Amino acid sequence: MKRIADSTVRRLSAYLRFLEDFENRGLTTISSAELARRGGTTSAQVRKDLSFFGSFGKRGLGYSVPELAGRLREILGLGREWRVVIVGAGKIGAALVQYRGFRQRGFNILAAYDNNPEKIGGVLEGIPVRDSVSLERDIAREQPDIVVLTVPGEVAQAVVDRIVASGVKAILNFAPAQLHAPADVTVKTVNMAMELEGLSFALTNRE
Amino acid sequence: MKRIADSTVRRLSAYLRFLEDFENRGLTTISSAELARRGGTTSAQVRKDLSFFGSFGKRGLGYSVPELAGRLREILGLGREWRVVIVGAGKIGAALVQYRGFRQRGFNILAAYDNNPEKIGGVLEGIPVRDSVSLERDIAREQPDIVVLTVPGEVAQAVVDRIVASGVKAILNFAPAQLHAPADVTVKTVNMAMELEGLSFALTNRE
Repeated sequence: MKRIADSTVRRLSAYLRFLEDFENRGLTTISSAELARRGGTTSAQVRKDLSFFGSFGKRGLGYSVPELAGRLREILGLGREWRVVIVGAGKIGAALVQYRGFRQRGFNILAAYDNNPEKIGGVLEGIPVRDSVSLERDIAREQPDIVVLTVPGEVAQAVVDRIVASGVKAILNFAPAQLHAPADVTVKTVNMAMELEGLSFALTNRE
Repeated sequence: MKRIADSTVRRLSAYLRFLEDFENRGLTTISSAELARRGGTTSAQVRKDLSFFGSFGKRGLGYSVPELAGRLREILGLGREWRVVIVGAGKIGAALVQYRGFRQRGFNILAAYDNNPEKIGGVLEGIPVRDSVSLERDIAREQPDIVVLTVPGEVAQAVVDRIVASGVKAILNFAPAQLHAPADVTVKTVNMAMELEGLSFALTNRE
């Protein structure tokens, strides 16, 4: 398959949310214009985003809401359970564990890891907090698909090296660090300061 | 100025981080190829991103690291203090307040707001937690530039309506909700489930 840009994948996730909203309101068909309006984009962009994955909708009739929603769930890999572990049982880790949206989408958080003796053996919003020394052994046994990294920036790369060596292929990184991983490992970084910079840019460059 | 895509702004933020890293290591010039390599993109993309903002670097000599870093800080609006308030003093709010990267970049968190009587009047990592009923009055007096929204999804739009009516022009939204705001208000949404979907997509569509 052609390499799909991150921005396209984000729009697909957004379209799915709109479609589910339409489903809840009992709508059965939707035009690319309506999807575009909800997403703040253009009909041409919607059609282009979907065209990567085959042919959808009927000219003049629009898309079937349940059919397109189902297809988007498939494309996004949401038809199954994903096993997730969180490394770093701090405030961001706790915020993520309690986030209801994850389980709803099939993201099942197995455990959190920390090296703080006061946290190890405890429970974080119903999720066990384990000693990070057992990370490799647990990964070998439980085969998590995704690791969420919420450790301090200084130790982030060392943790990435350990989990990559253990065979994990997808990392969601909240640590303020530029991480290096082999090409077959997908690393997505959420950088809070960069999100705010998007706003300071917008405020600075207003017409 | 031409409308600049979010993805471009994100890359500018990333380039600035690489340049600061180069500065710390005492490097004075850098090629677009090196910047591209660090950012996982192409030299052509780097040159195109920078070309929106004028002419940089000398052919064959590359960019001056301090000059380009300074210019990027200016472009991103980082040469000044930005006043930030957080609405919602829950776990995500607490995680953000303690995030060291913000103050470093000039984002000064004035206060957090909540409607929970047990939290109001307290202190969250050194930041006062105020009653959200005083939001409009405080915004009028303190004129924050940016509101970070970490309230439950069900009440997010109502809070947005209040802060927009109070004159705030930039919102960083962590609530799992599709928000509506006038065109002159910039809303950036960080959706944790969508970040994970980017990974489930990558895992599902591996070669």
